[in-house]
Amino acid sequence: MFLTRTEYDRGVNTFSPEGRLFQVEYAIEAIKLGSTAIGLKTKEGVVLAVEKRITSPLLEPSSIEKIMEVDEHIGCAMSGLIADARTLVEHARVETQNHRFSYGEPMTVESTTQALCDLALRFGEGDEESMSRPFGVSLLIAGHDENGPSLYYTDPSGTFWQCNGKAIGSGSEGADSSLQEQYNKELTLQEAETIALSILKQVMEEKVTPNNVDIAKVAPTYHLYTPSEVEAVISRL
Amino acid sequence: MFLTRTEYDRGVNTFSPEGRLFQVEYAIEAIKLGSTAIGLKTKEGVVLAVEKRITSPLLEPSSIEKIMEVDEHIGCAMSGLIADARTLVEHARVETQNHRFSYGEPMTVESTTQALCDLALRFGEGDEESMSRPFGVSLLIAGHDENGPSLYYTDPSGTFWQCNGKAIGSGSEGADSSLQEQYNKELTLQEAETIALSILKQVMEEKVTPNNVDIAKVAPTYHLYTPSEVEAVISRL
Amino acid sequence: MFLTRTEYDRGVNTFSPEGRLFQVEYAIEAIKLGSTAIGLKTKEGVVLAVEKRITSPLLEPSSIEKIMEVDEHIGCAMSGLIADARTLVEHARVETQNHRFSYGEPMTVESTTQALCDLALRFGEGDEESMSRPFGVSLLIAGHDENGPSLYYTDPSGTFWQCNGKAIGSGSEGADSSLQEQYNKELTLQEAETIALSILKQVMEEKVTPNNVDIAKVAPTYHLYTPSEVEAVISRL
Amino acid sequence: MFLTRTEYDRGVNTFSPEGRLFQVEYAIEAIKLGSTAIGLKTKEGVVLAVEKRITSPLLEPSSIEKIMEVDEHIGCAMSGLIADARTLVEHARVETQNHRFSYGEPMTVESTTQALCDLALRFGEGDEESMSRPFGVSLLIAGHDENGPSLYYTDPSGTFWQCNGKAIGSGSEGADSSLQEQYNKELTLQEAETIALSILKQVMEEKVTPNNVDIAKVAPTYHLYTPSEVEAVISRL
Amino acid sequence: MFLTRTEYDRGVNTFSPEGRLFQVEYAIEAIKLGSTAIGLKTKEGVVLAVEKRITSPLLEPSSIEKIMEVDEHIGCAMSGLIADARTLVEHARVETQNHRFSYGEPMTVESTTQALCDLALRFGEGDEESMSRPFGVSLLIAGHDENGPSLYYTDPSGTFWQCNGKAIGSGSEGADSSLQEQYNKELTLQEAETIALSILKQVMEEKVTPNNVDIAKVAPTYHLYTPSEVEAVISRL
Amino acid sequence: MFLTRTEYDRGVNTFSPEGRLFQVEYAIEAIKLGSTAIGLKTKEGVVLAVEKRITSPLLEPSSIEKIMEVDEHIGCAMSGLIADARTLVEHARVETQNHRFSYGEPMTVESTTQALCDLALRFGEGDEESMSRPFGVSLLIAGHDENGPSLYYTDPSGTFWQCNGKAIGSGSEGADSSLQEQYNKELTLQEAETIALSILKQVMEEKVTPNNVDIAKVAPTYHLYTPSEVEAVISRL
Amino acid sequence: MFLTRTEYDRGVNTFSPEGRLFQVEYAIEAIKLGSTAIGLKTKEGVVLAVEKRITSPLLEPSSIEKIMEVDEHIGCAMSGLIADARTLVEHARVETQNHRFSYGEPMTVESTTQALCDLALRFGEGDEESMSRPFGVSLLIAGHDENGPSLYYTDPSGTFWQCNGKAIGSGSEGADSSLQEQYNKELTLQEAETIALSILKQVMEEKVTPNNVDIAKVAPTYHLYTPSEVEAVISRL
Repeated sequence: MFLTRTEYDRGVNTFSPEGRLFQVEYAIEAIKLGSTAIGLKTKEGVVLAVEKRITSPLLEPSSIEKIMEVDEHIGCAMSGLIADARTLVEHARVETQNHRFSYGEPMTVESTTQALCDLALRFGEGDEESMSRPFGVSLLIAGHDENGPSLYYTDPSGTFWQCNGKAIGSGSEGADSSLQEQYNKELTLQEAETIALSILKQVMEEKVTPNNVDIAKVAPTYHLYTPSEVEAVISRL
Repeated sequence: MFLTRTEYDRGVNTFSPEGRLFQVEYAIEAIKLGSTAIGLKTKEGVVLAVEKRITSPLLEPSSIEKIMEVDEHIGCAMSGLIADARTLVEHARVETQNHRFSYGEPMTVESTTQALCDLALRFGEGDEESMSRPFGVSLLIAGHDENGPSLYYTDPSGTFWQCNGKAIGSGSEGADSSLQEQYNKELTLQEAETIALSILKQVMEEKVTPNNVDIAKVAPTYHLYTPSEVEAVISRL
Repeated sequence: MFLTRTEYDRGVNTFSPEGRLFQVEYAIEAIKLGSTAIGLKTKEGVVLAVEKRITSPLLEPSSIEKIMEVDEHIGCAMSGLIADARTLVEHARVETQNHRFSYGEPMTVESTTQALCDLALRFGEGDEESMSRPFGVSLLIAGHDENGPSLYYTDPSGTFWQCNGKAIGSGSEGADSSLQEQYNKELTLQEAETIALSILKQVMEEKVTPNNVDIAKVAPTYHLYTPSEVEAVISRL
Repeated sequence: MFLTRTEYDRGVNTFSPEGRLFQVEYAIEAIKLGSTAIGLKTKEGVVLAVEKRITSPLLEPSSIEKIMEVDEHIGCAMSGLIADARTLVEHARVETQNHRFSYGEPMTVESTTQALCDLALRFGEGDEESMSRPFGVSLLIAGHDENGPSLYYTDPSGTFWQCNGKAIGSGSEGADSSLQEQYNKELTLQEAETIALSILKQVMEEKVTPNNVDIAKVAPTYHLYTPSEVEAVISRL
Repeated sequence: MFLTRTEYDRGVNTFSPEGRLFQVEYAIEAIKLGSTAIGLKTKEGVVLAVEKRITSPLLEPSSIEKIMEVDEHIGCAMSGLIADARTLVEHARVETQNHRFSYGEPMTVESTTQALCDLALRFGEGDEESMSRPFGVSLLIAGHDENGPSLYYTDPSGTFWQCNGKAIGSGSEGADSSLQEQYNKELTLQEAETIALSILKQVMEEKVTPNNVDIAKVAPTYHLYTPSEVEAVISRL
Repeated sequence: MFLTRTEYDRGVNTFSPEGRLFQVEYAIEAIKLGSTAIGLKTKEGVVLAVEKRITSPLLEPSSIEKIMEVDEHIGCAMSGLIADARTLVEHARVETQNHRFSYGEPMTVESTTQALCDLALRFGEGDEESMSRPFGVSLLIAGHDENGPSLYYTDPSGTFWQCNGKAIGSGSEGADSSLQEQYNKELTLQEAETIALSILKQVMEEKVTPNNVDIAKVAPTYHLYTPSEVEAVISRL
Repeated sequence: MFLTRTEYDRGVNTFSPEGRLFQVEYAIEAIKLGSTAIGLKTKEGVVLAVEKRITSPLLEPSSIEKIMEVDEHIGCAMSGLIADARTLVEHARVETQNHRFSYGEPMTVESTTQALCDLALRFGEGDEESMSRPFGVSLLIAGHDENGPSLYYTDPSGTFWQCNGKAIGSGSEGADSSLQEQYNKELTLQEAETIALSILKQVMEEKVTPNNVDIAKVAPTYHLYTPSEVEAVISRL
């Protein structure tokens, strides 16, 4: 009676008989192929840690940006299609700058996340800013505003959740379990750094070095760790 | 003579030979996968209660918003795709604000509902505001205006009904039966809270806690219950 | 040599080899699934009567509007997709108001009907006002203008006819036969009420109550019967 | 080597390998299902006569308009989809009124016909005025201008011909033969009335009455016969 | 390895693997079904002669226009879809009038031909003036300008050639051979009339009469022969 | 695993799994069916020579333009669809005229070639100037600017190359070999004329006459040879 | 359950069930057919070296531009479809000129690369600047700005990486291995020239000559080597 699922996925934004949106689900698959990223919230601020896949020794590690600054109080880690992520981040940067300009104050982390999701939701609509397919990327958005530190997780469907800890990418399943075991509300920022990196280490196939991971914090402003700062965290493992 | 139903569903907005619109029916399926929400009208006001599915202990329960304020005299509970619901609610918020600005008085609950349904009806039209597919969400719209309290129920086809009680989402069938049994016109608001939550409890697989349900009332203004207020209702069960 | 009919119906607005427009025919099927509505013209005015399907005792019967006012001298009963009907009626209300504003006099019933059919005819054109599919609704338009009372019947193809009596919806076949038997030109409005309701009673599966039928008249202005007025007609059966 | 004809007809406006436009041919089929209409030109003016199919005794015969006035010196009879014909006639009325306004004189019958055919030709173009499919209607356009009386015949391809007599619709084949036999240049208008109605009578399955035929003349202005005038012609048969 | 030719022809304007444009080739087929037209150039001017197919004795022969004036120094004969030809000729009339208005002198015959072919070439482009399919018509464009008399032949691909004599339509093959045999540079206009009509006579299935052929000349201005002038040519055969 | 090549070619501008653009390759096929054209660069200037296929003795040879002037210092020879070539040349003429007007100096040959290729590259984009399919034509662009004489060769993909000699069209393979054998940097313009025509003669099936070949040079301005000048070159063979 | 990969690739920009974008992957195939290009960064500047395929001795080698200047501090080497590369480079030239004009300083190499990738990412969107398919080209962008020399590598997905050395095109696999072996951070520009050319020599099937390779450096400004400069590098091999 029903077609198999594969026959529904070519309408870019169409429901299947079971009420599913396959292009969104396929975009989520793209993220499962991506490198792992981890976010962890503490009272002092939020830590982001990502794996960088260095396919050639001639690649400049610092040019593989998987953690990017959105505004001085917001940063984000990504997994999936990097070019898509850059478009989303660029969009968020414009939104936060416009907000500062119009209202003279920083945009809240939730509003910034909502603005990103609005863009992600409207794929296939044909208007100027949207893509003709879902964005193949998940983001961990770390920020600090009048409500203190916060961490958001977005997926290609344009849905977002606020969380205390979250892993995305190919190693996310194992990493999420480890996060739940090790998380508690009283973590210090330094403990969070250690936990995030030790979990990342478990899911990576290579030895962890300052070249193949990036760490950043928003506490209360965005800071990407220098190689020696990363080295210091590694040495604590 | 006729094609099987599955061969008609890819034209986004096209009748089948039996006069059916399959994309709308499939969107309704999306809602059957959603969490359960319940609305109950009394003379004193309207109660909304929803189940929140907490997939990870690290998720911030308060960030899973399944009941949202539209205007100070209107709130709504939702089931289905949350990103779609946010778009509809945002649309309704703009409409009600514009109405206040233009006419100096609040928009009626029915007009607000009609505005939401107009947007839902016109999917696939290609104009600026509409989606390229039906909105995969049902809403319970609770409000209070010059006609007293009212409760509306909308589905993805853009149709709406006024009701005294209604359940939507995966547990709606059982919940609707229970509502019909327990409803009477003389219910107090407090009795309605108890009934809504006790029915929600029956259809949820987990123990009810202030973390996995939300309750709100419009009586005559919108109020989302605090965890301790929810706790109080739970304790009355 | 010819494809079977089913292979032609996916072009929204395309002729089949036999010169037929299948999407319009399928929309007509949608109406055959709808609730029954009856219109009957007398010298004193026009009577409209509709069946309301109350799927749940918690639904507010008065919110199931199957008879709506267009202008003070025009009302209409509908069968089919209610959301589509609301769009058409809203369009007609704007047209009649604009006409009053521009010309200082009410729009004639025929012009109003023509305006509705113009919109219905142009589905699939991609312009602002039209739908991407036919409107899945039939209307009985009752009115009173300088030519006295009149009753029009429209179908999804954008065609309209003037009649003395007409039934639409799932019970229309039997109801039409009964209307032809019982109609004569000398009917009073009260007789018409009785005939319309007695025919509706035959095609409904439930007992007739003020909750599950609506009656309205245009004589010479639109009036929707109150429950007690409906009760009075029921008592005359 | 060639596909069968049916595989070419879904491109709305595309040639088949034999150089044919199937959607136009299918629209012509729609007309073969229509009621019969006859036009006959004399020196004194032009006569139009049409069959009206009364599907229910409760239909108002006068509301089935198959002959319509375009301007005071032009009328037209139609066969096929009535809603399409109304659109074309409305277009012609605007054109002729604009012409009177701009030039202070009536539009010629040929120019009016050409304007109608221009609209019919451009189906599937996606611009504002055109349809997304061919107009499923044929017209007999009777008029009187500085060149005396004239009769034009248009088909869905946007082609037109001037003729002395022509029948369209389901009975056109037999009616055309009869017209050729009985036509001569010296006919009076009264003789033309009698011939047109007697031929119509042959192709109709029912008895001819003032209710199921309409007659009009343009001699030199448009006049639709009253029931008693029609009765008078019937009595001469 | 290759699809058969028929599988390529539905993209309106797409190359087949052999580098062919099938929709254009199919439009050329449409012309092979058309009535025959002949053009012949002499030093004194150009003669055009066409066959008119009178399908009914009640058709007004003069309304079957297969030779039309473009400007006072240009006329054209056509074969194929007459409604398409009328659109092209109307376009050319506007172009030549605009040229006269802007430059105070007549447009050359080649520029007029180029303007027609530009329109024909751009089918399927979706802009305002172009068609969604090729124009199904060939033209013989006869003119007289500062370079003396000239005759152009256009086909549906938008290509044109200048020639001394050319036949188009269903009888073009035989007619072209006869033209080549009988043509010489010293022909008088009267000899050209006789040759053109005698060749037309060979390819027509009926007796030639002033009713079923049209003759025109551009020498140096356009003139369509009256019935008696045609009769005079016939009498010379 | 892969579809056969034929299944990829219907998306107008889409890569196949092997990274190929089939519509462009098919357009190149269209050129292989075209008449042969040859370009040869010398220090004194560039010679272009083309074959003209005279399908009927009544065709005016001079109206078959296969070499056209772009600007007074640029000419081009073409092979493939002539109507497409005319569009490109017309575009280039506008570009070079605009350049002269804006900068008061002639456009360089390379810039002119680039402008032509920009237009050719963007087929299928749907904007105003571009075609919905590739241009089915190759050009040999001969010019003379501040860098002296130059010869460019373009293909339907929008790529161009500068060369000393090049043949295009159905006879290009053999002609290219001959050109490579006979070319040297010290050729005079007269020697180039002889070589070009002698090679053309080899690939043509007919005897070479001033009627079926055209020769032009840019040295340093464009000049199309008169029949007697062509005759003179023929006599030197 | 899943379709084979080939059934997903025709939607220009659509995910497959595994989360892949096939049109982008096919465009990458187009590059594997291209000629080889090599980039190598040193402290003194960046060297680019490309293979030029001379298909005919009559082609002007200097007209095969596979290394192009973007701005005076940026150059780029390309592999794949040359016409696509020209469009991208032209876009980058406009961007860098606009930047100079607006800000009075050169655009950074990273911003220029980002601008190119933004254009590449948005294929299939239908807006003015983007292509309807991915750009079938990879670029090696060499530049020098306030951060010193840098080398970027872009692919058709719109992703870019910064690297110390990179090879693209048909010989890229072997060339990349050789680059990794021979690269060290202390290379002089002259050593880089020798390494780049010796690696290119290994992957080319022909003898290396100043005619079939191009070399350029950005140190700190763009310079394309003259034939004698290339000869000098060859002689050092």
